[in-house]
Amino acid sequence: MSIEPPSINHALVLHPGGTFSYSERDIPTIQSDRDVLVRVVATGLCGSDIHYWQHGKLGRYEVTQPLILGHESSRIIVATGSNVDGLEVNDRVAVEPGISCNTCAYCRSGRYNLCTSMQFAATPPVDGTLCTYYRVPAQCCYKLPDQVSFRDGALVEPLSVAVHACRLGGDMQNRNVVVFGAGPVGLLCCAVARAFGAVEEVVVIDVVEERLECARRYGATHTYRMQTIQGDSSNAEQLRSVTELPEGADVVLDATGAEAFLECGIEVLSAGGTFVQVGLGKPSVTFPVGMVCDKEIGFKGSFRYGPGDYKLAIGLLSAGRVQVDGLVTHEYDFEKAEEAFQNVAGRKGIKSVIYGPSIGSNLRMG
Amino acid sequence: MSIEPPSINHALVLHPGGTFSYSERDIPTIQSDRDVLVRVVATGLCGSDIHYWQHGKLGRYEVTQPLILGHESSRIIVATGSNVDGLEVNDRVAVEPGISCNTCAYCRSGRYNLCTSMQFAATPPVDGTLCTYYRVPAQCCYKLPDQVSFRDGALVEPLSVAVHACRLGGDMQNRNVVVFGAGPVGLLCCAVARAFGAVEEVVVIDVVEERLECARRYGATHTYRMQTIQGDSSNAEQLRSVTELPEGADVVLDATGAEAFLECGIEVLSAGGTFVQVGLGKPSVTFPVGMVCDKEIGFKGSFRYGPGDYKLAIGLLSAGRVQVDGLVTHEYDFEKAEEAFQNVAGRKGIKSVIYGPSIGSNLRMG
Amino acid sequence: MSIEPPSINHALVLHPGGTFSYSERDIPTIQSDRDVLVRVVATGLCGSDIHYWQHGKLGRYEVTQPLILGHESSRIIVATGSNVDGLEVNDRVAVEPGISCNTCAYCRSGRYNLCTSMQFAATPPVDGTLCTYYRVPAQCCYKLPDQVSFRDGALVEPLSVAVHACRLGGDMQNRNVVVFGAGPVGLLCCAVARAFGAVEEVVVIDVVEERLECARRYGATHTYRMQTIQGDSSNAEQLRSVTELPEGADVVLDATGAEAFLECGIEVLSAGGTFVQVGLGKPSVTFPVGMVCDKEIGFKGSFRYGPGDYKLAIGLLSAGRVQVDGLVTHEYDFEKAEEAFQNVAGRKGIKSVIYGPSIGSNLRMG
Amino acid sequence: MSIEPPSINHALVLHPGGTFSYSERDIPTIQSDRDVLVRVVATGLCGSDIHYWQHGKLGRYEVTQPLILGHESSRIIVATGSNVDGLEVNDRVAVEPGISCNTCAYCRSGRYNLCTSMQFAATPPVDGTLCTYYRVPAQCCYKLPDQVSFRDGALVEPLSVAVHACRLGGDMQNRNVVVFGAGPVGLLCCAVARAFGAVEEVVVIDVVEERLECARRYGATHTYRMQTIQGDSSNAEQLRSVTELPEGADVVLDATGAEAFLECGIEVLSAGGTFVQVGLGKPSVTFPVGMVCDKEIGFKGSFRYGPGDYKLAIGLLSAGRVQVDGLVTHEYDFEKAEEAFQNVAGRKGIKSVIYGPSIGSNLRMG
Repeated sequence: MSIEPPSINHALVLHPGGTFSYSERDIPTIQSDRDVLVRVVATGLCGSDIHYWQHGKLGRYEVTQPLILGHESSRIIVATGSNVDGLEVNDRVAVEPGISCNTCAYCRSGRYNLCTSMQFAATPPVDGTLCTYYRVPAQCCYKLPDQVSFRDGALVEPLSVAVHACRLGGDMQNRNVVVFGAGPVGLLCCAVARAFGAVEEVVVIDVVEERLECARRYGATHTYRMQTIQGDSSNAEQLRSVTELPEGADVVLDATGAEAFLECGIEVLSAGGTFVQVGLGKPSVTFPVGMVCDKEIGFKGSFRYGPGDYKLAIGLLSAGRVQVDGLVTHEYDFEKAEEAFQNVAGRKGIKSVIYGPSIGSNLRMG
Repeated sequence: MSIEPPSINHALVLHPGGTFSYSERDIPTIQSDRDVLVRVVATGLCGSDIHYWQHGKLGRYEVTQPLILGHESSRIIVATGSNVDGLEVNDRVAVEPGISCNTCAYCRSGRYNLCTSMQFAATPPVDGTLCTYYRVPAQCCYKLPDQVSFRDGALVEPLSVAVHACRLGGDMQNRNVVVFGAGPVGLLCCAVARAFGAVEEVVVIDVVEERLECARRYGATHTYRMQTIQGDSSNAEQLRSVTELPEGADVVLDATGAEAFLECGIEVLSAGGTFVQVGLGKPSVTFPVGMVCDKEIGFKGSFRYGPGDYKLAIGLLSAGRVQVDGLVTHEYDFEKAEEAFQNVAGRKGIKSVIYGPSIGSNLRMG
Repeated sequence: MSIEPPSINHALVLHPGGTFSYSERDIPTIQSDRDVLVRVVATGLCGSDIHYWQHGKLGRYEVTQPLILGHESSRIIVATGSNVDGLEVNDRVAVEPGISCNTCAYCRSGRYNLCTSMQFAATPPVDGTLCTYYRVPAQCCYKLPDQVSFRDGALVEPLSVAVHACRLGGDMQNRNVVVFGAGPVGLLCCAVARAFGAVEEVVVIDVVEERLECARRYGATHTYRMQTIQGDSSNAEQLRSVTELPEGADVVLDATGAEAFLECGIEVLSAGGTFVQVGLGKPSVTFPVGMVCDKEIGFKGSFRYGPGDYKLAIGLLSAGRVQVDGLVTHEYDFEKAEEAFQNVAGRKGIKSVIYGPSIGSNLRMG
Repeated sequence: MSIEPPSINHALVLHPGGTFSYSERDIPTIQSDRDVLVRVVATGLCGSDIHYWQHGKLGRYEVTQPLILGHESSRIIVATGSNVDGLEVNDRVAVEPGISCNTCAYCRSGRYNLCTSMQFAATPPVDGTLCTYYRVPAQCCYKLPDQVSFRDGALVEPLSVAVHACRLGGDMQNRNVVVFGAGPVGLLCCAVARAFGAVEEVVVIDVVEERLECARRYGATHTYRMQTIQGDSSNAEQLRSVTELPEGADVVLDATGAEAFLECGIEVLSAGGTFVQVGLGKPSVTFPVGMVCDKEIGFKGSFRYGPGDYKLAIGLLSAGRVQVDGLVTHEYDFEKAEEAFQNVAGRKGIKSVIYGPSIGSNLRMG
């Protein structure tokens, strides 16, 4: 693989108001001896990217100045600091998009995803990866195995989200697991739950039949199409028909944040079970706290990923324990990035990936 | 201490419809060689007792036949099965009111509070302890230390609820803890949190000033009176004035179930914190699930108590690490039991205890 | 499958001094409404059975009166108590050989393997399963899936030992694991470690080349033959050649108890790693405590199995996640049971199983 | 408190061969914007300091070039980097002597004490704190509360060792704890175990009666003088007389590393108990592995301290939950530092502290 590094740092820039433009940015340089300079090969689009484009803000973060989006990316190393071990120029890598301070109490105690000074790509005002070059600390770079393409390498980020959520779910050996939502994160949660040993019952629930078909390919043993997200009155009956879980589920992973799913999920949990909230919808929902107490349920918010999640995600891919073939349903050249945004906004396919800038087909295959 | 066991098993019986009557019941007998026969000395009244009296049902349990209420009690052993070790006639004991099956998967794995066949005193149709005699398995009996009176022995049950909740809260050494509610369970949570090492900040919040005064006597380092339970608009500001917790609380224990407290509690938690729901109000509440995810909070339902909780509760009393002097604010003879129910329904004092039947003042002092 | 239950309870009895005789015993009867009466189909021989035969004692247990050996068995239910749910006559089951008291502090807190009143089959003076009929409590019976033969059902016991040990080893997803010993328990530890996610490096070490060949069939990614058990001087070099573990192993499972392996195992562990001692040799060994401290290693004794281990063992077999084909290398009729003991004593093959009494070939296939 | 910072960086230097000299070193300067420059006020001597002086090496570390010893110290801040929050010039601080890399897998996962690139004060070739000035990263500095003197601030390091060990011991609420060794670390383990809730039984064992007297002042409920460290034959009987622990100890903390204590400690543990090895003696010892398995004991090496330990140590002092008055039995001026080494080598008193350089009595009181 021979690489001729471009001499220009192209970027797709989102402007306040929701318009995109292409522009040139300075090429970043190695600043600390543990820095790495990477060239972006493929970037997957995430719901948050679409949200910033469409709404200009997400939670407490707002697009008040031009911002480069994108944070799910595979890259190739073009330069390394003098004190970087185990990484070399031309290494193919997946990169954690969050740069933590490493010294706050959260970082020191192994919960760096909660770092109070986190700089996270494509979260205002920190630029994302829809550009040619990016500088990251060495510890955020994870080598891709040869058998994982750049395209699939862009999936390591959402796969790490699923790994983190499944770890919060606790021991899954022979446990019954229910996953709400068959989008990228839900499907990956389903696949990871199976890899973690939940092989007898992994029920996936969604409102779209096509997504459920997909779920069956990614490890679901059972699927159920709920008629409506908000029809609470019939939830209990739907529930009974959904599940072959006479004793209930041990773990529920909700990758949607939909209110009706949450109530249904608490209901389907067995006593002592665990509910992991990995996807986000409305900031406030109706919550069956009575059942949570009666069944002594643990309800856990899952936020991004932490120590070991990226490494394990890559390990699962490397050993073929999680299959992602077909998850990337749409691929775009950098010049057509805006089409990718429109495609995701239209909820077409599962995952859309943007190559580049300046990534020819030979590199994509790498 | 000389005991002349009564020859009649008196009982206070709640009838469907909400009326009480006194009646005689057969005296229970030892049936298994690990059974113990106890005489009830003091029974504390719990919110659930009041609820059954006033509403005839609680959750999925309904009073459809005459029922003896009461489950927080101290007792004296009057007979033991042939295979009972470590307990003797005349031993003063606190008694776990729940008899688990011991063989289901929950019982075998150390979560007997979730036993699917639990027989729990004063939960229909299982009779409670407002009677002279009661039969229990030996493993439910815990000897009271000499320095713990029968009156205070009736507090071991709610103290075990607090111990269980605080254990769910995780490590409390030097952590900041917020307790919502200054009723019996909230006050005991406050005291246990301090005993568990949360000595710098234990903030207690209630709507009644008198209860907060009480909280300061049971270990609260700070207290705050929220103006109203439901005034959500001003919660955030109230919050700021309540707490000297610049980094937020590590653990919140909610002993009320009030909706406004729940939202306030999630808000005051620091990232990575734990919320334990120990008290119950409405079965469904509005829940700030967005914050729960962003801060990766663990929200845990707490249900009764499990392995080791009773033993630790008694140990805390025995070593003087939890003080309960003054928590029992009202004491009633068995003949005036109905007055006790009315007193609790009127939310007077902290804890009301009923002696008897036939427990003279010499035994009360025991 | 039609069963004609024999009318005689035949038994193979070990007498103090080490001689066997066949004799008749009374047929046990249902005593509690949760009892189950089973007919023994196949019993695997364990090292402890051989030890009692050859040495008359093991640890603090001694054969002072006639004793029936055998505790790894698959069985068929012939009668059930009136209060037994989920089990029926003719059900094929694997049976936990230990009957715990269910009420001591260990039992109540989910560690029933440490029950102080445990009655364990074939541990003096409790009789084992080399007989026709056996009475057990319902909670010790686990239904065998159709695809698991009675022969392999006898392996559920040692498989549960491996499951318990691997659980003590902690999270194994993508971890590097080293197993010492390629006998039945070592091989099963290797297979379970892989099922638990340790797929990249599961190194098995033994002194016998044939056993290592076997290990490669049961999931070992690497094997190493140590030249001698006691040659400590060359351990360090051997170690280096053994492993492709530049950062050391995350978990070591020692199924031998050999002194030299223990030292080697501590040396090969990475900092923060876990050593699980599952097999037993000498009661005292030389122990590199300095390394244990410097690397903050957790060294855990593993004793039998506890909550959920049997269920998970069967689940692993049922889903084909652990393969045991070929592990039973020798099968004997009940009448030739002594040959089985001699075979195991001679360290031939992996696992020897005794059928019967009176188990024809049709039942063996069942 | 007015400080006139000295203009010279004095140091006590250990030379290979074991001789000390006083010399001048360059004053270190702020290099990173998160660095802090501190002036050393008091340094406690640790066994490792004595070992390097007497033997020139410890484990794999060897004194091959001049080395400044000392790592248990309290200090005063004299300068801060531009990006340091929460610390100011003149702040009185205890300082973690280990500077971890913050980016290796151990650091990122909350086990920075196992950092593979740790720079630890007074561990060759890293200089220690017996000098005037020292540069450290801000996250290693912990403010001392007003009520903690500089003298006692030097005890925060060994107290953190005890906190770390006790945390490894697991839940200590009402548990029975046995501590071997009544030197500084053993006494602090005893005090921390009590603060952690082990109030009924904290047995301290040593061979020196004077130390046991001291133990009773620092929280021991029982003490026992073992006749000899190596007399194994009588250990079992000694054991019986030592303890009022009919069911054994839940946790053993060994602060000595003495072989006979280790065996005695395993014997006194109840099934399921935990042994924490915090002190170090011989690199290899005889180990009763049979009992470790039969009782399913967890044996844990404890290495220095990790996330939160320093903070909690200071919190325990601040709240008066651990009392250290009288633990510092000998105080020396910097000019007489060698006497301090001789005093510790002679095993006189509990803890010896060296002030300085140039720390007058007014500062000592600070």
